[in-house]
Amino acid sequence: MPTPRRMKLIAYLKTGPSAGHSGGWRHPSAALDDIFEPSRYEHIARVLEAACFDAGFFADTFGLGDTFGGSYDTYLRLGGQTSYLDPMAVLPLMARVTNHLGLGATLSTTFNTPYWIARTLASLDHLSKGRICWNVVTSATEMEARNFGFDALPSKSERYDRADEVLEACCTLWDGWQPDPFVLDREKGIFIDPTKVARADYVGRYVSTRGPLTIPRSPQGRPVFLQAGASDRGREFAARWAEAIFTESYSKADAQAFYADIKSRMAAYGRPPEHCAVLPLMSVVLGETESIAREKAAYLDTLVSDELQLAITSQLVGVDLSRGIESEAAVVDELSRGNHGIEGERAHVAQVAKAAGVSFAAAAKRPYEMIVGTPDLVADHMEDWFLGGGADGFILMPTVFPIMFEEFGRLVVPILQRRGLFRTSYQGATLRDNLRSP
Amino acid sequence: MPTPRRMKLIAYLKTGPSAGHSGGWRHPSAALDDIFEPSRYEHIARVLEAACFDAGFFADTFGLGDTFGGSYDTYLRLGGQTSYLDPMAVLPLMARVTNHLGLGATLSTTFNTPYWIARTLASLDHLSKGRICWNVVTSATEMEARNFGFDALPSKSERYDRADEVLEACCTLWDGWQPDPFVLDREKGIFIDPTKVARADYVGRYVSTRGPLTIPRSPQGRPVFLQAGASDRGREFAARWAEAIFTESYSKADAQAFYADIKSRMAAYGRPPEHCAVLPLMSVVLGETESIAREKAAYLDTLVSDELQLAITSQLVGVDLSRGIESEAAVVDELSRGNHGIEGERAHVAQVAKAAGVSFAAAAKRPYEMIVGTPDLVADHMEDWFLGGGADGFILMPTVFPIMFEEFGRLVVPILQRRGLFRTSYQGATLRDNLRSP
Repeated sequence: MPTPRRMKLIAYLKTGPSAGHSGGWRHPSAALDDIFEPSRYEHIARVLEAACFDAGFFADTFGLGDTFGGSYDTYLRLGGQTSYLDPMAVLPLMARVTNHLGLGATLSTTFNTPYWIARTLASLDHLSKGRICWNVVTSATEMEARNFGFDALPSKSERYDRADEVLEACCTLWDGWQPDPFVLDREKGIFIDPTKVARADYVGRYVSTRGPLTIPRSPQGRPVFLQAGASDRGREFAARWAEAIFTESYSKADAQAFYADIKSRMAAYGRPPEHCAVLPLMSVVLGETESIAREKAAYLDTLVSDELQLAITSQLVGVDLSRGIESEAAVVDELSRGNHGIEGERAHVAQVAKAAGVSFAAAAKRPYEMIVGTPDLVADHMEDWFLGGGADGFILMPTVFPIMFEEFGRLVVPILQRRGLFRTSYQGATLRDNLRSP
Repeated sequence: MPTPRRMKLIAYLKTGPSAGHSGGWRHPSAALDDIFEPSRYEHIARVLEAACFDAGFFADTFGLGDTFGGSYDTYLRLGGQTSYLDPMAVLPLMARVTNHLGLGATLSTTFNTPYWIARTLASLDHLSKGRICWNVVTSATEMEARNFGFDALPSKSERYDRADEVLEACCTLWDGWQPDPFVLDREKGIFIDPTKVARADYVGRYVSTRGPLTIPRSPQGRPVFLQAGASDRGREFAARWAEAIFTESYSKADAQAFYADIKSRMAAYGRPPEHCAVLPLMSVVLGETESIAREKAAYLDTLVSDELQLAITSQLVGVDLSRGIESEAAVVDELSRGNHGIEGERAHVAQVAKAAGVSFAAAAKRPYEMIVGTPDLVADHMEDWFLGGGADGFILMPTVFPIMFEEFGRLVVPILQRRGLFRTSYQGATLRDNLRSP
């Protein structure tokens, strides 16, 4: 009998007040004073590993969102999500207090060089003994481009072309070192066998690098690639490179369509379907009873600011929603004049608007959907999508940090485990092993 | 009575087999198997803090040295110094196990953007509560330039002009956040006071950045700047920016001349002399008696490979010494055709050649000078330079890692402390406080 297929679970994290629900930081139980404390990150790493999560990764933006009203004022004042610390600085701390949990950060292929990316990720993969993933982003805002000295954000197609080159260059650098190059013969004075090291000599249209890296081959060889492409070009990129992909699907049907599309695109690249886990984003509010959960969700709703939520959606969609834009058509019209914004975010808001029968602008004021109910209900939902061809697992966004993860680990994970849907211990030696195990 | 002036001590580290003496890794006591282990870096951090060192910092090169014979073969095979891990990945681990020790890494102003540099260093300064320093380098090899996609290394003057801009841009980004911006009012939903955050809007000839950073002002405001300029342009840069400068001085007279020059250049920038500590590089071999120390030094000499030493000097000086170049004049002639190499390294080899009455090529085969003797003799040497206007303290390069630091802390530091020349506990709250305290 073959091993039953099991869910993959990844936590979506931020080095800021909240990572999903925009009012979550105002909850009395939200951790708030410890954003700059190592213990905050060590704690969540331990919580996720105790719950057998595959990984936790940090979403990131390389600047303060200023699409809404042309200013970062609302974003900062009302507690919008951003990185108040570089996530790369906390990953070593999280690796140090865990043994199995995968750990990831977001690096932009548009603003970084392959040599630096390859060097720093290989280093973290060594220190963590093979547990690093890279959330590959091409970055979609003028704001970030200007922080990094660009006059304007390159077009989406140029960004993705460059991203292909950056990944090719990184892989060539990583593959430049064969395994086990160390001789370490003190007597003869031979340290490394240099025949196991080769130059990259990568010359692309956008990036080039000679190599070799100074970093020997790491346990995973290369980090696990995480991606979130939703546009046609983004899906194509994901189908070629991604080993886990996260997506915002409003309904099971949306999730199934996305799932089928990604797996069929992968086939065109000769990749088996199990080499990329499709993971819808999910957020939960748990209660001992349905009505407790609903009360808790309603309370959370009172913490949401319309202004902040519009600022967040403006940032993601790439259009300033402070100026009375109401319909998706108007948003699309605005977007046609620039090249920023994330197509999947617009599609998601449109899905929400359609399902709820409200305007695009009204849907833009809603925080991420939450699954609200008892642990059994949440497990039912996950099982339904997982067995129904909509998901290989999920990316969990917190409502209230870190307690949503603590509660999920305590209450939902054991149900999934009892149903045989989720691991009870880590099987693989590396993050990739765990993600690819059935 | 004013507090007596005290020495500053910084450890020179590498994420590789050795950091100073090229044969040190072959010593039976050298730690060798743990380059990828967090414990290696945690251990040295604890050792340095127990010895009251101001800081430890990682020297770094962004590629494998290939000046010698046009290949990295010798460098790797014989155990040349390089970074087998990105030092930025180990600094958080070292910060986590210490409370006072300053921690630094080397970042190139030629290959990195100010936004990234400012963001990552501010993050580390938060996590360490104000203990980060940045060894500012402009990078001096074609090899590194090609790793980062340059066709050729920019000229030295262009590199330093760009470095000035990068530091200006970083400082503008860091200063964009006023202290204490957090409101954290859950009730009203106010997270940050956005009036305490300003854009950088830095536009230079080489770099530009809009800002603001996503990272609030860190405990030190900006990291401590460490630098090693030796050329006229490099010294001018150091006089403007450096808060600690390391130098290779062969004799006390060389050290005094350099010291006086830096302090007088600082005055032209309106900086008080105590705002930059001048720290000659030093390496020691300690013995219970003079003759034991000499025996240990002679044994270390047997571990040096002429070929590796020539490869190392080739890399530093910027000229391939595998092709029979004998004199400094021939080296200068070679260098005039390119713009790489470190002027201070050439000057140092020339000083050694002159003092020893040997050719440049012969001097190029010698490892760094070591102070060899009893702990008292080493302390005498340090006191002599320190009180004689040659040094504000020293940068210690290891012979054998980590035992040289362990022995130095156990045997030399107490002598310096008894003589009132070195702190017995940390006084300041931050690295900068400690470096500037008398």
